[in-house]
Amino acid sequence: MNGSIIRYILGLVIRIESLLLLVPCLVGFLYDEPEAFSYMFVAIICFVVGTLLTVSKPKATVFHLKEGCVTTALSWIVLSVFGAIPFLLTGEMQSFTDAMFETVSGFTTTGASILNDVEALSHPSLMWRSLTHWVGGMGVLVFVLAVIPLTGGSNINLMRAESPGPSVGKLAPRVKSTARILYAIYFGMTALEMVLLLVAGMPLFDSICTAFGTAGTGGFGIKNDSITSYSATIQWIVTIFMIAFGVNFNFYYFALLRNFKKAFQMEEVRTYMAIIVASVAIIAWNIYETTAGVAKAILDAAFQVGAIITTTGFSTANFDTWPALSKSILVLLMFIGACAGSTGGGVKVSRFIILFKTFVKEANSYMHPKSYKKINMDGKPIDHDVVRSTNVYIITFFTLFVASVLLVSIEGRDLVTNFTAVAATINNIGPGLALVGPTQNFSLFTYFTKWVLIFDMLAGRLELFPLIILFHPGIWREAWDQRKKKIIR
Amino acid sequence: MNGSIIRYILGLVIRIESLLLLVPCLVGFLYDEPEAFSYMFVAIICFVVGTLLTVSKPKATVFHLKEGCVTTALSWIVLSVFGAIPFLLTGEMQSFTDAMFETVSGFTTTGASILNDVEALSHPSLMWRSLTHWVGGMGVLVFVLAVIPLTGGSNINLMRAESPGPSVGKLAPRVKSTARILYAIYFGMTALEMVLLLVAGMPLFDSICTAFGTAGTGGFGIKNDSITSYSATIQWIVTIFMIAFGVNFNFYYFALLRNFKKAFQMEEVRTYMAIIVASVAIIAWNIYETTAGVAKAILDAAFQVGAIITTTGFSTANFDTWPALSKSILVLLMFIGACAGSTGGGVKVSRFIILFKTFVKEANSYMHPKSYKKINMDGKPIDHDVVRSTNVYIITFFTLFVASVLLVSIEGRDLVTNFTAVAATINNIGPGLALVGPTQNFSLFTYFTKWVLIFDMLAGRLELFPLIILFHPGIWREAWDQRKKKIIR
Repeated sequence: MNGSIIRYILGLVIRIESLLLLVPCLVGFLYDEPEAFSYMFVAIICFVVGTLLTVSKPKATVFHLKEGCVTTALSWIVLSVFGAIPFLLTGEMQSFTDAMFETVSGFTTTGASILNDVEALSHPSLMWRSLTHWVGGMGVLVFVLAVIPLTGGSNINLMRAESPGPSVGKLAPRVKSTARILYAIYFGMTALEMVLLLVAGMPLFDSICTAFGTAGTGGFGIKNDSITSYSATIQWIVTIFMIAFGVNFNFYYFALLRNFKKAFQMEEVRTYMAIIVASVAIIAWNIYETTAGVAKAILDAAFQVGAIITTTGFSTANFDTWPALSKSILVLLMFIGACAGSTGGGVKVSRFIILFKTFVKEANSYMHPKSYKKINMDGKPIDHDVVRSTNVYIITFFTLFVASVLLVSIEGRDLVTNFTAVAATINNIGPGLALVGPTQNFSLFTYFTKWVLIFDMLAGRLELFPLIILFHPGIWREAWDQRKKKIIR
Repeated sequence: MNGSIIRYILGLVIRIESLLLLVPCLVGFLYDEPEAFSYMFVAIICFVVGTLLTVSKPKATVFHLKEGCVTTALSWIVLSVFGAIPFLLTGEMQSFTDAMFETVSGFTTTGASILNDVEALSHPSLMWRSLTHWVGGMGVLVFVLAVIPLTGGSNINLMRAESPGPSVGKLAPRVKSTARILYAIYFGMTALEMVLLLVAGMPLFDSICTAFGTAGTGGFGIKNDSITSYSATIQWIVTIFMIAFGVNFNFYYFALLRNFKKAFQMEEVRTYMAIIVASVAIIAWNIYETTAGVAKAILDAAFQVGAIITTTGFSTANFDTWPALSKSILVLLMFIGACAGSTGGGVKVSRFIILFKTFVKEANSYMHPKSYKKINMDGKPIDHDVVRSTNVYIITFFTLFVASVLLVSIEGRDLVTNFTAVAATINNIGPGLALVGPTQNFSLFTYFTKWVLIFDMLAGRLELFPLIILFHPGIWREAWDQRKKKIIR
């Protein structure tokens, strides 16, 4: 294993975090709040540590999938640990577990909070929470790839480990260009939402934070009631942008190239939209009687469906009090998730398309046992490896899910709370049902449960394997062997 | 498609049912209860219909997988329809839906009842319910194969469609011998349990019904409190036999051949036992404080774990009131189910073993991308097709599961009720949690929900595809084309 490149990239990531920490620091100075110094202090620490780690260049920049996974997992852990320190320094959180939960929830774009009163936070901390969403949404390593010249290595493996979805498509021949295009689209759309929110009458600070939270499909609100108290216009804008950030970014790339035919033919995007329309229709019909008018029922249904399927997790209604059918649909949407190649979480629409096509193929094989057809997507045959790894992904996902529910059950809460707490974290959504419903938060859990959920948030965001691979004995044996060899030499 | 063989076998199945119906009829005469005549009447109808269908021999006895599936699905539907009529004639049930629910629940060895007061039933009806369990456990078509000479056809496809598990192993070179061996083991073990129950002081009628219910892993009790009011000795006997009937029957076959090494090396049986021991230990520890003594806690845990993992569904404790961890484990066991090649339902232990091994293989491929290893089970490599169809099975299973939960949710009950009602029927268990907990029953649901659950019970028992294939447009198009051709000729 190439240890020096891992060390080097971790250094780069920490240096980037030191820059990111300057944003809340600046906000603190603008609002004249002393919390600014906590952020400045950690920024300095990050700068020093990051610089020390990047002083000596790596000998080789070769990158295998293994290194990609290990680097990604370690990057996200390190990022979260440093990102949690300011919350402790400002005194806004008392325990490291809580600070870590909040930060991991931010970077993984989950948006589950352990805070009872969000509005009591300082402006720098509110900004930092939302900023972690924005950075986590597109991925910090994709950012590294966009700005740092890592030549010679097969650094697509870095992107593969961090990007969501069953297969990673390069938009441009070079990874660096792909990463830049992605960040350009991401930045443009975030800016557009911010401007629209401002025009609709939202204050500047709120607009920035809400746009960050939407873009990353994060879901940390800066109000205790999330988005509920803003106007219907603002809620519609947020709804549309949530859904837009859940779309596969290839769609926007094709649209930018004016290749609209290719964009609108994307099966995943069409299925995603169909699921949203159907869910909104059923839920609006289901909640209509208890809501003030049809328009409000449609808005409430659309907002909540958008918030859940894209795994953003903002809310404008307490859907925990909705009828069983609506709640069941929302729980189902939690698992479906957004499109691959978007900033959203969940299992991803494309994986379900692959599963569905595998099923149809099998059903047909009962009719014609000897026929052999490959599964197609967007007119192209899907690689057998992709089908296989999709199956494995689903298996692994549900195994981790079930194990987590059992571990959380030890605390003895009700089944719906345990089930949806894990569903809301492993899919990076935020709110669940019952004790972790949209009007509740995660502060009630023991430290043990919180660490289980922290693991789930990371596993969900990194799509399981990069994190799980850290527990593979082979990784550590190899690292250990190399160290021994070095000492002997 | 070979229509005449399907017609012929359906006729045989109905004739067998007419014989089966004589058992409750006889019980009725012994107890001098007028319900005997209802059973006799339906037995006569079945005999007439069955004879008419089998008057002309089929032209060809060739059997493809397709015919196997269609025959199996239709057999089970026809069997249930005729089996439901006595309940209506005796006046013990008022609606066809309820009678059908009870009969399907019987044949599929589910054991979920729509009766509020089981003890109010006549003796013939109690016997009929338990007998359907016994027949459904090993499968009626396996019985057909055991007694009827169907030469020339590849009738392993019939067995394949009805037998549980990812792959069907023939114990003997000929299908007929395999079917006979299976029924001999089945009959012997049932008789043994009956005798032991008698010795332990259970009345004869109770012993027969309980042995039938245990052997088929069914779960219909003849008391309102299931097995709760019987002695601890009886509960232990039932526990041991429930677990024994959940074991892959190949185990007993090897043991009969005195090939103990091969028997005890079966990975599925060892895993199944390990899961049981671990679950009993955790649950006993979890419920210990609220139970009268350690011995009682262990018995309660063992009985309920045995009843759920084997999908029998008897109960001796209201586990709906147990702590969350115990309940979560039981819900998990509902899905794991028994061994393949047993009379139990659920997804089956061997499928989970295959999934787990697939996962380990994938995790290793991250370490050594170019290595290629086949998955082994019991020392032999698993066929790639088995791995693939296991994946497809799981996908189909969970798709049907989710769709059913959504349909059941329309009624508006709580999430735990909906979730466990579907889990308890699709896995052929019986009781779930909350409103369908062990002290409750399924009478509260609407007809619509009951039909959804009837479908789930059949789909679960026939392992999905034989039933789903009935909805494949190709099947009906083909049958239609053949009919047209016949008319033209």
